[in-house]
Amino acid sequence: MQINPDRFLADLHTLRSFGAAGVGKGVQRQAFSEADIAARRWLAAQIADAGLTPHFDPAGNLFGLAEGPSLLIGSHTDTQPEGGWLDGALGAIAGLEIARAAQEAGGPAISVVSFQDEEGRFGVLTGSDIWAGDLTLAEADAFTDAQGNAFGDMRRLIPETQDFVPHDRFTGFLEMHIEQGPYLDETGSRIGVVSEIVGIRDMKITFEGRQNHAGTTPMHLRQDAFQALSAFNTVLAERLRNVVTPLSVWTIGEVNVHPNASSVVPGRVTFSMQWRDGDAGRLARMEAVIREAAVEISAARGITLAFGPLMGIEPVAMDGALCARLEGAAEALAPGKWQTMPSGALHDASNVATVMPAAMLFVPSIKGISHAFDEDTDEADLVLGVQVLACAAQSLSA
Amino acid sequence: MQINPDRFLADLHTLRSFGAAGVGKGVQRQAFSEADIAARRWLAAQIADAGLTPHFDPAGNLFGLAEGPSLLIGSHTDTQPEGGWLDGALGAIAGLEIARAAQEAGGPAISVVSFQDEEGRFGVLTGSDIWAGDLTLAEADAFTDAQGNAFGDMRRLIPETQDFVPHDRFTGFLEMHIEQGPYLDETGSRIGVVSEIVGIRDMKITFEGRQNHAGTTPMHLRQDAFQALSAFNTVLAERLRNVVTPLSVWTIGEVNVHPNASSVVPGRVTFSMQWRDGDAGRLARMEAVIREAAVEISAARGITLAFGPLMGIEPVAMDGALCARLEGAAEALAPGKWQTMPSGALHDASNVATVMPAAMLFVPSIKGISHAFDEDTDEADLVLGVQVLACAAQSLSA
Repeated sequence: MQINPDRFLADLHTLRSFGAAGVGKGVQRQAFSEADIAARRWLAAQIADAGLTPHFDPAGNLFGLAEGPSLLIGSHTDTQPEGGWLDGALGAIAGLEIARAAQEAGGPAISVVSFQDEEGRFGVLTGSDIWAGDLTLAEADAFTDAQGNAFGDMRRLIPETQDFVPHDRFTGFLEMHIEQGPYLDETGSRIGVVSEIVGIRDMKITFEGRQNHAGTTPMHLRQDAFQALSAFNTVLAERLRNVVTPLSVWTIGEVNVHPNASSVVPGRVTFSMQWRDGDAGRLARMEAVIREAAVEISAARGITLAFGPLMGIEPVAMDGALCARLEGAAEALAPGKWQTMPSGALHDASNVATVMPAAMLFVPSIKGISHAFDEDTDEADLVLGVQVLACAAQSLSA
Repeated sequence: MQINPDRFLADLHTLRSFGAAGVGKGVQRQAFSEADIAARRWLAAQIADAGLTPHFDPAGNLFGLAEGPSLLIGSHTDTQPEGGWLDGALGAIAGLEIARAAQEAGGPAISVVSFQDEEGRFGVLTGSDIWAGDLTLAEADAFTDAQGNAFGDMRRLIPETQDFVPHDRFTGFLEMHIEQGPYLDETGSRIGVVSEIVGIRDMKITFEGRQNHAGTTPMHLRQDAFQALSAFNTVLAERLRNVVTPLSVWTIGEVNVHPNASSVVPGRVTFSMQWRDGDAGRLARMEAVIREAAVEISAARGITLAFGPLMGIEPVAMDGALCARLEGAAEALAPGKWQTMPSGALHDASNVATVMPAAMLFVPSIKGISHAFDEDTDEADLVLGVQVLACAAQSLSA
């Protein structure tokens, strides 16, 4: 089969006209917004034109089905409230172009998909989670967005739905995506083959000290909750270095100080502690370091400590056989210009991998920017990525 | 003159019935609230009963005027939204009791005052600031509280006002107050003679890094604004120790992280940096350390730094001659049980000291608690304090 780069890029640019932000190539196309629904119906028309059967399932996932057993390729076309033009759209249009080229060439059998609400307007990877069977439609229906709109009401805005597509129609799943980080751009690589999607641990921690007057309370008598957080953070940076790899990350992203006034010694601080790694054992070792540091710091300072519930998403390894095909195709089309790497972000492939072999391919994000209007990738890299993906798909049918 | 401890304590307890919170001895009596105005009118009646002339000025300050030149004694009777029963009320009732006892004894001439809005519903020490002449009534009229009520409208709720009382009616000012900190309680002292009211410097500082995905951005490429604050805080604690005394304090009390989400590397943090000391030179040296640390940390981490405007209240020394009288009275009535100390909190005496000799006397706050319903002081200490104050007032007329 023969990929048509101009047709592929033209479709990508047409897709960004749905919900165009008017700022650079930026897009505002949240799940079930008018722009999202219009974009899905446009994509359904392209699917039909390509000789595939468009199929909306009850979650709003749009499939383009080839006849008989097929390889599934795709991603998602919804965006963040202020999103970029590529993100999941790239993977969906890559799937469309490869399926179209395969139809033109008389094979192999390729189906395409755009999952719904990957970006979490309502849940987390909602559409692929429902389809993979980990989340029931009834559970998802109760999810609401920040404005209180329920998933169950919003999904009825696409009335042309049919049943869920059975998993066994597909032999495997390939997802192409922008990296959304700086690795490839920084190292001059043009292709990344994803080895695993990292696991996440996320926990709220509260230090409760003693709220006091910032003028009359001497330093040595303070039980300052913010100072405790600061000390915890310093200790953590020292100790985590002994258990992590350069790919492990940890983040204190949310900090709420009480009463948060310049003349009051902070009595309480609640903050988010999140860490990610591709190895479940290492995630557990990081957790032990984090808990020990919090216990030590709070005990040393007369501070009360409370751990919130631990939220966990397990690391997901990509399928070895599929990865080997992607690596072979990358070495053929971009020799020396590709690398294997973990994905630090979640993707629909995390869910799909629970029901069939799945793998992912990354192209570079310029300066690592994503979830922003100025997200971008060199068009030559976009084309190379879809060619590598097509080559791998072809090799699977050989 | 002879202080009547029972009458003094009875008045203090009566005053806390105005705006009683119903929680312990707590009081809710913000400036110009119904409870505040009722309390002021009750106090005016006590003043009249004591043989003094009640006098409301246009700012809502209530004076009880003795004939001819007199020593002024008092504080304020407004409270924080959730305040204690003593705070400024103690100083106002102490003034009332001493003026009453002096009237009964035929001298000396003692006047009393309850300043308005010391607690800052509208401004900062608003009533005494207007009376001292540092703030015009027109400027204060534009001040609004958190609900948008203007000082200019609220002060008309007390229509029985007369002109401002000339400063030269008074030979000096004495203010008794609870310490609002733990020094006296911790050291077993029963009286504090205030040497100076500390100066305050307050500044917002902003670190702007790069907001990034908490999964895809490796640690070594992050420009995490919260990590910069944490490092700044650590460096500050080390370096300030070289320039401060045990009575110097510094506080990071307000911290606002952007976008404040667990999965996003913080792109910006704005925080309050406040420091207090009794010596203007030391305040300047602390400022230099703070600015240098912020510049170094931001430069080392590729972070943009912005300093907000520096808010400054100068340290105010108490009058030496008045302090000597307070010290003499303390040594006479509480030998070995008193100490000189700075005030870490602002008081009306800060403003009054700019127009006449002024001094302050502290009694212990149990556990240092203030601006809270459970603020309290042993009644024996309250009585001792008013006796020391009366003794000093007597000695001034000798």
